[in-house]
Amino acid sequence: MSTLLVVGGVAAGMSAASKAKRLDPSLNVIALEKSPYVSYGACGMPYNLLRPDDPMESMVVITPEQFRTKRGIDARTNMEVLEIDAYNHTVKAKNLVSGELSTFQWDSLVYSTGAHSIKPAWPGIELEGVLTLRDLVDGKAVKDYLARKAPKRAAIIGGGYIGLEMADVFTELGIEVTVIEKLPSIMPGWEPEIVKPVHVALEKGGVILLEGVTVTGFEGSNGQVKAVLTDGPTIPTDVVLVAIGVRPTVDLAVNAGIKLGPTGAVAVDREMRTNIPGIWAAGDCAEQWHRVLQRPAYVPLGTNANKQGRIAGENAVGGHVAWEGMIGTSVFKTLGADAARTGIGRAEAKDAGIDVAVSMIDAFDQAHGMPGRKPMRVILISRKDNGQLLGAQLVGAGVAKRVDILATAIWAEMTVKDVGNLDLAYAPPFSPVWDPVIVAANIAEKDVDPNGLECRFCK
Amino acid sequence: MSTLLVVGGVAAGMSAASKAKRLDPSLNVIALEKSPYVSYGACGMPYNLLRPDDPMESMVVITPEQFRTKRGIDARTNMEVLEIDAYNHTVKAKNLVSGELSTFQWDSLVYSTGAHSIKPAWPGIELEGVLTLRDLVDGKAVKDYLARKAPKRAAIIGGGYIGLEMADVFTELGIEVTVIEKLPSIMPGWEPEIVKPVHVALEKGGVILLEGVTVTGFEGSNGQVKAVLTDGPTIPTDVVLVAIGVRPTVDLAVNAGIKLGPTGAVAVDREMRTNIPGIWAAGDCAEQWHRVLQRPAYVPLGTNANKQGRIAGENAVGGHVAWEGMIGTSVFKTLGADAARTGIGRAEAKDAGIDVAVSMIDAFDQAHGMPGRKPMRVILISRKDNGQLLGAQLVGAGVAKRVDILATAIWAEMTVKDVGNLDLAYAPPFSPVWDPVIVAANIAEKDVDPNGLECRFCK
Repeated sequence: MSTLLVVGGVAAGMSAASKAKRLDPSLNVIALEKSPYVSYGACGMPYNLLRPDDPMESMVVITPEQFRTKRGIDARTNMEVLEIDAYNHTVKAKNLVSGELSTFQWDSLVYSTGAHSIKPAWPGIELEGVLTLRDLVDGKAVKDYLARKAPKRAAIIGGGYIGLEMADVFTELGIEVTVIEKLPSIMPGWEPEIVKPVHVALEKGGVILLEGVTVTGFEGSNGQVKAVLTDGPTIPTDVVLVAIGVRPTVDLAVNAGIKLGPTGAVAVDREMRTNIPGIWAAGDCAEQWHRVLQRPAYVPLGTNANKQGRIAGENAVGGHVAWEGMIGTSVFKTLGADAARTGIGRAEAKDAGIDVAVSMIDAFDQAHGMPGRKPMRVILISRKDNGQLLGAQLVGAGVAKRVDILATAIWAEMTVKDVGNLDLAYAPPFSPVWDPVIVAANIAEKDVDPNGLECRFCK
Repeated sequence: MSTLLVVGGVAAGMSAASKAKRLDPSLNVIALEKSPYVSYGACGMPYNLLRPDDPMESMVVITPEQFRTKRGIDARTNMEVLEIDAYNHTVKAKNLVSGELSTFQWDSLVYSTGAHSIKPAWPGIELEGVLTLRDLVDGKAVKDYLARKAPKRAAIIGGGYIGLEMADVFTELGIEVTVIEKLPSIMPGWEPEIVKPVHVALEKGGVILLEGVTVTGFEGSNGQVKAVLTDGPTIPTDVVLVAIGVRPTVDLAVNAGIKLGPTGAVAVDREMRTNIPGIWAAGDCAEQWHRVLQRPAYVPLGTNANKQGRIAGENAVGGHVAWEGMIGTSVFKTLGADAARTGIGRAEAKDAGIDVAVSMIDAFDQAHGMPGRKPMRVILISRKDNGQLLGAQLVGAGVAKRVDILATAIWAEMTVKDVGNLDLAYAPPFSPVWDPVIVAANIAEKDVDPNGLECRFCK
């Protein structure tokens, strides 16, 4: 019997394990996960915090027991892999509960260790109340802290999507929020026309934004965090969330001789193969193939992890499926100003040497006359030479699935003219008769005069 | 100075007038509209009924005065066109307010008379309280009737989308609703798997559904409708809405020698040209080019009317723009069971001699663990030979813009495999990590076992 060993059992790892076992029921599939949990929806943790009576463990989609009994997968938690021996095809692991050491033989291996929060060695980082929110253990710690300490003020370090989702959640919990971003603006990598309405919505919602401010450490009292120290003001707080990004977890891979790509994540081809025969990698520890840029990038998202995992699983049992790649489609919710993006932005286009046109529309999510309609902004980024749509960013109401229209159009290599011709659904509660997506495409095609359009976000 | 005469000034007509004038500012553009209103959002009328203090006239997007002063278009209301003389290039019209008759000369003409409600010669059809909801005059009459009579019970004849939108609105207004459909099922033309959940939602919402029941007339007292007579039960009621569909308004066209297509609507080519040089037609009076079936069809929707109007306007001033067509994308809201469709269904595929595969998924609109998530059903219809996506129907929460993902995919001639690979946006409040659209495509690709999926609508 052949053995597939999966190192890391969250999204990518358990997708790989499930796919492989389904394709080859005779396969012995072992998944080793360092934490006490496999297969959970980490992205749902911020929203779980809003429900005090719903334990964080409810984020678990499938338990190790269910993997064993229903899917025939030997999923083991609290198992830290210490070494991957690529030559002898073994893995050494330690049971973190019993301390027991074991060695596993494998025929194929999927490396899916994920990523970990960046937590600099700031003085005071060890104080109680300085938290991160990456895995389920983090999520439990945050929830427990909120229950025990009932903080009144929170400082969030980092104005990316996790930071802003958490600003939303803390605000909803009645906690005063300060967001500290080192860069000149929150939402690095987003177009300024999209950032501005989010900025306005956050401040309107009572969130204090400190941009261009560098954290230098923390002040505490009796081991408990009391303030964030910066190169600017000192921010008194009852809890700190460090959300300045993640790094791929690659130590084991590097020690095993698995090569990293230029992004610092594990280099994989489109079949999720690493440089070592018999070892695949998938998920947040690995690079992702960017379909628009036609090169690897590092976009650690759950959607990509699940897809990469399935492909790794299929190929680990002899398949030859190539990933069609991703285009960086994502969305997040923050204080009524949802923001969504797909494809590339101005900066990425410039880096790639592509000359682009940018068109923008301020519109509403519902039809004329609907009293509850809310503003929305759409930006399209298209090739100047042939009009091919390369990117889109949206902010406001109703953007979450509208971005998918544009993601589909980018996927199909449509031009803005094509998008302007699309037959999209219309009923007054759901859309204006000309969907904002179509109007934005018509503007790009110079088919509409943008000066005639009211700026919904300018007030 | 050259004159463009527009006969009928709602969606298609005023789009044509505006586009033509913008492209050729020297053009004399006259639009004659029989009713007192031009350019209004008729689709919004059901929702206006929910707001007693908001006059139905607020559905007007641009007034005749604004057309004159801001766009330089001579828009005239209450002007009934009596005759189009295609040989002498004249139009005879009557001012319905003053009775004055006038004759207009034209160089080009856009025929955009729209459609009218079908209202059979049932005995009692003239009784007060037997209403339709097609144009703004109808809308005002319905609103006025509701205000004056405060009906407690409504009978809706016709279980199509207008009937079901109005069932929703009447229910929200606290009016008891009975829907009478002559055919064996409401929502003719929709797939039964989509109709069923709507059926359940309507009955759960207290709407009485009488299917396979034929109306024979009305009973009244003092000129006021009191009951609907059928081949089955007699239904006591305080108001009747006749919503059994529309017919294209073609009398003037036929008299002018303009040819109709097999659907009974004005035959147009993809440049919106009729058989008579110098006469274009657009909107609900005309046929629409079906991109999937590659033939004309009759799908009178506001989205199509606006697009056809713009193309007619551009071509009437010398352009040669061909419409890319439509694929029948639409959505409607009814008692929490929104239903959306795009492309073709089983029956249309059969008629066209195309062998199709059907895949179905019951899923949720939000991620695992989100307590407010609601069920959704997605059906995909694809070519059996090559997997090309030809149609999709959805019901439940979050379907309105999700159908647009599939409309875009159909437009781009993607296969279900392509759809299964799409990079769509994910965050727990907006979608499961595998969007239902992707799962449905994976099922079509036999990449997921549908038997393993729970039926959300079966309970």
